[in-house]
Amino acid sequence: MLLATPHPKTAVNSQLWTALGVRMDRPPCYAGGFMANKIEARLARGLRDLLPEEMIQRQWMIDTIRGVYELYGFSPIETPAVEFLDVLSGSAGEEAQQGLFRVTNPEDEALGLRFDLTVPLSRVVSQHELPLPFRRYQVSPVWRADKPAPGRFRQFTQFDIDSVGAPSEVADVEIMAAMCDTLEALKVGGYIVRFSSRKILNLLLAYAGIEGDQGTEVFRVLDKLDKIGLDKLKLELGPGYKDESGAPIRGLGLEDTQISSIVEFLGTKGETRTEVIAKLHSLFATVEGAKTEIAEIEAISNHLEALGYGSDRVMLDLSIARGLAYYTGPVFEANLTDAPEFGSVFAGGRYDNLVTRFGGPAVPATGASMGVDRLLAALTHLKRVQTSKTMAQVLVSTMDASLTGEYLALTQELRRAGIRTEIHVGRPKKLGKQLQRADRLQIPYVLIMGGDEAARGVVTVKEMEVGREQADAVTDHEEWKEARFGQQEVPRTELVATLKRLLKI
Amino acid sequence: MLLATPHPKTAVNSQLWTALGVRMDRPPCYAGGFMANKIEARLARGLRDLLPEEMIQRQWMIDTIRGVYELYGFSPIETPAVEFLDVLSGSAGEEAQQGLFRVTNPEDEALGLRFDLTVPLSRVVSQHELPLPFRRYQVSPVWRADKPAPGRFRQFTQFDIDSVGAPSEVADVEIMAAMCDTLEALKVGGYIVRFSSRKILNLLLAYAGIEGDQGTEVFRVLDKLDKIGLDKLKLELGPGYKDESGAPIRGLGLEDTQISSIVEFLGTKGETRTEVIAKLHSLFATVEGAKTEIAEIEAISNHLEALGYGSDRVMLDLSIARGLAYYTGPVFEANLTDAPEFGSVFAGGRYDNLVTRFGGPAVPATGASMGVDRLLAALTHLKRVQTSKTMAQVLVSTMDASLTGEYLALTQELRRAGIRTEIHVGRPKKLGKQLQRADRLQIPYVLIMGGDEAARGVVTVKEMEVGREQADAVTDHEEWKEARFGQQEVPRTELVATLKRLLKI
Repeated sequence: MLLATPHPKTAVNSQLWTALGVRMDRPPCYAGGFMANKIEARLARGLRDLLPEEMIQRQWMIDTIRGVYELYGFSPIETPAVEFLDVLSGSAGEEAQQGLFRVTNPEDEALGLRFDLTVPLSRVVSQHELPLPFRRYQVSPVWRADKPAPGRFRQFTQFDIDSVGAPSEVADVEIMAAMCDTLEALKVGGYIVRFSSRKILNLLLAYAGIEGDQGTEVFRVLDKLDKIGLDKLKLELGPGYKDESGAPIRGLGLEDTQISSIVEFLGTKGETRTEVIAKLHSLFATVEGAKTEIAEIEAISNHLEALGYGSDRVMLDLSIARGLAYYTGPVFEANLTDAPEFGSVFAGGRYDNLVTRFGGPAVPATGASMGVDRLLAALTHLKRVQTSKTMAQVLVSTMDASLTGEYLALTQELRRAGIRTEIHVGRPKKLGKQLQRADRLQIPYVLIMGGDEAARGVVTVKEMEVGREQADAVTDHEEWKEARFGQQEVPRTELVATLKRLLKI
Repeated sequence: MLLATPHPKTAVNSQLWTALGVRMDRPPCYAGGFMANKIEARLARGLRDLLPEEMIQRQWMIDTIRGVYELYGFSPIETPAVEFLDVLSGSAGEEAQQGLFRVTNPEDEALGLRFDLTVPLSRVVSQHELPLPFRRYQVSPVWRADKPAPGRFRQFTQFDIDSVGAPSEVADVEIMAAMCDTLEALKVGGYIVRFSSRKILNLLLAYAGIEGDQGTEVFRVLDKLDKIGLDKLKLELGPGYKDESGAPIRGLGLEDTQISSIVEFLGTKGETRTEVIAKLHSLFATVEGAKTEIAEIEAISNHLEALGYGSDRVMLDLSIARGLAYYTGPVFEANLTDAPEFGSVFAGGRYDNLVTRFGGPAVPATGASMGVDRLLAALTHLKRVQTSKTMAQVLVSTMDASLTGEYLALTQELRRAGIRTEIHVGRPKKLGKQLQRADRLQIPYVLIMGGDEAARGVVTVKEMEVGREQADAVTDHEEWKEARFGQQEVPRTELVATLKRLLKI
């Protein structure tokens, strides 16, 4: 069932796999002796299987997103799940590593599972000599050993795009445009991309007379606005307050005039980006260098306008703070307007110090990450994804072993015509059982052919949905058993054409 | 750059991510203080990055394989990378687990990274109540802490299909047909699927008078035939021998008559499956139950024939042993005839005791696994994959900042037309540098538009390949610098049509 290693010519650590029962290509479940000790089939905390129903939706999502990103010229990369612990956690130390899944190889190196795709990207850019700009996408699982909760898992999938070595504001425009195009392609319904810039926030610091490290603290508090509201925000910027549980929330101790300036800034709103920009110019009229910084936002806004992304889709929202030391320029996030409770489904921004951690010079970069699981949860909640429990569109049922060759030929003919077809390979069961399974899996069509039909050159096509509706209208069990709901006889020669028409392919 | 967790509403283990610098959505590389300690950008032993050139090929392969499997009605699943150690290793014990990457979560449970996709499948089937037959595919990385070697890595990708709850020989036929269809779709050139059956091998044991556990040992030795050749095989079945290094290879101690019977069996060959089957009937004429067992192989062969898979593609090869206790019926593998040195690119068979390890009843199953990395290595070796270093088909170069809006509009127009287009977002560079990068990345077309061209409503399209050929013919450096190799002016209104024609889309 499996191939041992990518290359068979090289020596294999064969004792180990032999002990596991994997003699080159045999999994250990068949190693001798285990039959005596039954093992419980279970998963560790916070992990889950994705069965076909969920996977089919996810694959559609991922394929769709890929399609958009590839049109933008982003190229795929993949990095190993396992990274060195110091690469992952920087100098954040022992305590910080508790949130990681630790990994040990036979060499006993200190390793862990990646918790995002940005750290691996920064390693890749540092380690390989890549022509810049390097524009990549990566869709991969990440692992975080958080406390599990309903709907929150310790392995989940992120889909990132980034342009590395991209100082131009056009790169930021592109990320936001790609966010819009992706959400349109996924048919999510209403959405809004909101953006601001760390540079504008720095103007605010100058305007409010906030200096040094305190600026970072202010951004951290601003980022909580959506969650805590303006009143608590003001308290947290000032003296602090006690939360509902009575726990003290430390305040930053800003002066009242400073807090007023921040509130004034947060109140700078407008119907359009142009309006907000005009207000910014007047608000920061006295701040040194404000014109230049605002001009960058203005350029971004103009580019978006030229491309048809108006303020109804991409909003300049000064309350967007996202990140502390990390972001250095534009920051953006996207929310579904019909499901705001799911939070941002996309988030990103410009970060110009990506590779300095590995000793390289600063490299300007910008990008965004989509939470595939979160968006799928939101779309499922909104009933905006088509669910399907199997890829099969047609089941060829089997009722007469002597016709197996016919059934197989029929199956092959449909597959060759691009119809996803399954043939019954289970226990030889009565037709009713096969139909039951097709019903449970929501396979739309079942083909039925007995000796009589084969002789007459016809096949019975049963439309499961129609059959279900007709059957639902019946109350008598005997009648139900006898009726041939949703069935029609189709000449063998017209079968492919009929199914293609029914399936609209 | 990332979304913290699939669901924002639930409480987050925020102290940990804060310590890591991931305050909800910030990667730890930006945590304070790390700047002082540079970390080396590196990967642990046996791991590698897949950069765009390799990934683009792999994705094409994976998409192609997926297409075939979905036509067969197989549906995708995904299981977590991390499994309980006892689930992975059964009762094979401590020593056996050395080949695994061990994983630790905060609860200090004994976990590991999966080393194949069959064990997780068996867990899934045991754990979830699934309608049988359950037909799934899974394409996922697996991890094995083998001794690394050139071209052999500790993380690699497998692509498995399996039909679980599928006692019918039709299920086996389908797996082999899917193997053929996949290799055809991947345009691998010559290939051969070879199959046999554990049931035929059991007839051999009866014929040769080999009993009990020794049968399993015989199969293990038979499996080495391709590698060691017939002479050594005979020695290993008998008294044993010393290998080239002088190390003793223990023999099974079979009697000469038994070895002769095995050699006689291995010599049972024929041009067609029918011929081999006829010879089998005569060889095992005296063996009890032989007729029934051979009839199953005969049915498989007939089904294959009816579907058009002749002996030239699917060969009945009695030397195929594959597996010991694991397989219970047909076994199969596929090789590329032009690159036999890469070994089997596909392998599989029937295993009817899948879930017994977890205490369930025996469930008949059959399937196959493709080694994506191995096949890609073989196809690359055979130069049968089209390589490409980027997804971008067109680069819109930028030379005049005042035309940025025009460049963006151009870019968007091409993308909307389905042309994968990149706009220069790097440092404002001279055109030559932008062309150099396009050349290095093998982007086929570069668009050039200065103020003069914009005013005249034209765009210059540079065909990089043509330009390279023309430039190669030039020896004078000054001439090289001045010439506009492979360039043509195209009216702005005809640009999309021109590029679509050039790109054949």
